[in-house]
Order: sequence, then structure tokens, then C-alpha cells
Amino acid sequence: MDSAFLKENERIDDLGRGGYRVIQNPDRFCFGVDAALLAWFAKVQEGERVLDLCTGSGVVMFLTDARNRAGTYIGLEIQPVMAEMAARSVRLNGAEDRMAVECGDLKTASERFGKASFDVITVNPPYKRAGSGLMNPDEGKAIARHELLCTLDDVLRESMRLLKSGGRFYMVHRPGRLAEILEKMRTYRIAPAELILVQPYRDQEATMVLISGIRGGRNELKCLPPVVIYREKNVYTEEFIRIYRE
Amino acid sequence: MDSAFLKENERIDDLGRGGYRVIQNPDRFCFGVDAALLAWFAKVQEGERVLDLCTGSGVVMFLTDARNRAGTYIGLEIQPVMAEMAARSVRLNGAEDRMAVECGDLKTASERFGKASFDVITVNPPYKRAGSGLMNPDEGKAIARHELLCTLDDVLRESMRLLKSGGRFYMVHRPGRLAEILEKMRTYRIAPAELILVQPYRDQEATMVLISGIRGGRNELKCLPPVVIYREKNVYTEEFIRIYRE
Repeated sequence: MDSAFLKENERIDDLGRGGYRVIQNPDRFCFGVDAALLAWFAKVQEGERVLDLCTGSGVVMFLTDARNRAGTYIGLEIQPVMAEMAARSVRLNGAEDRMAVECGDLKTASERFGKASFDVITVNPPYKRAGSGLMNPDEGKAIARHELLCTLDDVLRESMRLLKSGGRFYMVHRPGRLAEILEKMRTYRIAPAELILVQPYRDQEATMVLISGIRGGRNELKCLPPVVIYREKNVYTEEFIRIYRE
Repeated sequence: MDSAFLKENERIDDLGRGGYRVIQNPDRFCFGVDAALLAWFAKVQEGERVLDLCTGSGVVMFLTDARNRAGTYIGLEIQPVMAEMAARSVRLNGAEDRMAVECGDLKTASERFGKASFDVITVNPPYKRAGSGLMNPDEGKAIARHELLCTLDDVLRESMRLLKSGGRFYMVHRPGRLAEILEKMRTYRIAPAELILVQPYRDQEATMVLISGIRGGRNELKCLPPVVIYREKNVYTEEFIRIYRE
């Protein structure tokens, strides 16, 4: 039955949470630890409208809803093949009443959806500046990893427009770009609210950062304790198992 | 003998490291954990010139030198009573060949010392914006805690001028102001280099942040593992004991 949802090379992965499953194509960009951490970090209340930018396979929507069991979701994805696959995952999960996927460019998202139209934005954007590091020869993976089609500026400028006053912004990114992230959040009036560094091991530098912000907020930044992923090689810490599985 | 160095209400505290002692007046601003952490964080090489801004009792100079055993130090302090006391501590330690204290305003420090004249700057500045929070009725303590006589902008603008190209900046501050700190470091071309959050307990949010930067650097920010101070009430963690005592 499920195979009716699949195209060539695709597979269905059980997210192990809330009954959600997601269609992925191993030849394309697959979700990782960052999506799971972002979904754990994001808080959604009953009746809230959530926009997941750069939604890819839609996994952040599924995991966020599995945790929060509240709100309605739109996932925006610029690559037609990924958007179509994510839309099939929504149908596979029978979640059409609460989730939709649209194919489009986040740079014009506020024209498409209207200004101040969301309570929450989640985003797992491309981490690398265009031209920095090795570029993936696969165009789809390159778009997911490098800022080819959208920059940090684009993400934050459109989020400012899309969020209601007091609305919350949740992003996962790289610590190497933290200074730029915090600076641009301030530029676009999304007051940095909570920061969590993610370390592979307890004694190693962070490789990811979770950052939230409040549209038009006047709050101070809180720096919460880090999340450590591995206790030893191939063994997750208890805290990460809680984040990943619960 | 030592009492010859003391004025009314003053006492001598043994820093328990490198033989250094410091004169303090309990009625005035006394050093704390932040000074010890800053001195642990700062790295000084042989032959380098170090400027300690907002030096107060001079404790950051003494602790930094006890750790690094290299370089020459100038401590700059705006409050004449504190500057005079710090200068006596330098004499008490017999360190006049490598350390000096000057009384003056950091806002004009680059005129006093010359541009690009230091390899390293350390600073434990006032943490609070003028007008924020309760103001200490004692003027000296208020100056040490609130940005009455110098702001974050002043500290970073003058540090930019005072540091040689490639020179290092080390500061301890509050996480609540991290976004502003990183933004202004970039504005004043001191590229954020290393960040360490300091948490009172492992499961509590950070109450201090150590941040370094490189004048004119093109480096990415590294977010290192946090320092946790207490294992349980009144019991330091082993890592903090190493920082504090070694």
C-alpha cells in the first residue's frame, strides 16, 4: 500500500514519534540530527500557525508536530522535486487537515502568505556561504547546503515580515556564523531569546547552534546549557536520546 | 612589614598563585570569579605588551601573569583611589619591572598609549547599561558595575585602536548582552574568535561569557565547551578548581 506513495529510489523512514513517517530519497538531501534538534527546540501552542522554511522532506514539520501536537503547518520548499515529495509525505501521514507544502521562493514568501501571518517560523537553512568550502556536485544537495538560492539575510528579512509581533523564530545553524546570525537578527528586529550550543562530545567545541528570537521583542538573550550528542563513539548521551526519541 | 602598604579598611589577599597578593578594600569593589576566569582565558606570549582596561585592584594583571609568566602589563583605571591602590599592589608584589598602573579614561587611551601599541587587551568591564537595574549607592561600586564612565562601544572602539593588527582581545561579560557584544566586535573589526559560556550549575543557564577576538581577523567563531562552576551547593567542580587554583 505504502509503495503507492513512492517513486524510484525513494524509501519511507519511520520517525519513531507520533506515528509520523517521511519519504526520503537517499540520492538527495536527507534529514539529520539538526532537524531533530530544531523540532525539539521549537515550541508550538494550540491554534498557532507555523511556517517551516526550507522544509526539504518536511521532516521538521512532522517532528515538531509529533512533539507539540498543536498548530497548523505550512512547509515552503524551493526545489519542486523535494516539495512534491514532502507533499506526498503529508498525505502518507494523513495530515492534510493540518499540514500543507508549497513550492516557492522564501525571498517572496511574505507576498505569497501575507505579512504578520505566522505565530512561529522554523528553519534549517543552508549553512554555508556561497563559494565557501567544497560544493556538492549534485545541484539539489548543493542548494540545501550552500546559500545559493537564499542567504541568512533573506531568511531573517522574510521572517521579520512573516511573523506576527511577538511571534517566535527557531533556527538551527553553525556556531561559526553565530556573530553574523545575532547581528542580523537584531537588524531585522527578531530579538535573540534563547541559545543552545550543540557539542558532539562534552569536551569538544560546538558544531551546531539552536537560536530562537522574538519578533519585536525587548528580551535579553538566555544562553542555556549545551546539548551533548555522544557519550563515547557511537553511543548517544541520555539527554540526546531523550531529545531524539521522546 | 606589609602593613606599610595598607590604608584604612584595606586588607591583603593572597591570590594563591605565582606568589601574587592584591590589596583590596572590602568597602569597595572586590574581585570575583569573573576576574579569575578572564585571567585563565587570556593567553600571553613572551615579549608581548598587555593592557588591562578597567583594572580596578589590578587582580586580572596579577592572575594573568601568574598563569602565563610572560609579557609586560599596563593596568588602566579611571578611579584615582583604585588606581593608587593597584599601584601599591604592584609594589607589594615587587613587580614594578613588568607592571604599571595608570589612572585615566579608557575613552582616550589610544591617545595616551598610541595606536596599535598592544598585543593583548584584557577587560572585565561594567556589565550593566546605565539606567538598568538597581544602582549601587556607593559611587565607586556603581562605576565598576554600570556603564557610567564607559560603554561597551567605548571599550571596543578604543581596543580596536590600541591593538596591533592580529592582536588579541579578551573580555568577560554577561550572556544577556552577547548579541550586542558580537555585533559591536564586528563593527570595530575585532573578529570574534572563541566563546566560552560559564554556568553556575550544569543544568542552569550561563551567567557569564568569556569572549576573545582578533584585531582585523578573518577567523570563524569557535564555541568551546562551557565552564561549570558548582557541582553542588558550595562545592566547586574539578574543572573550576583547576581554573581557579592552578
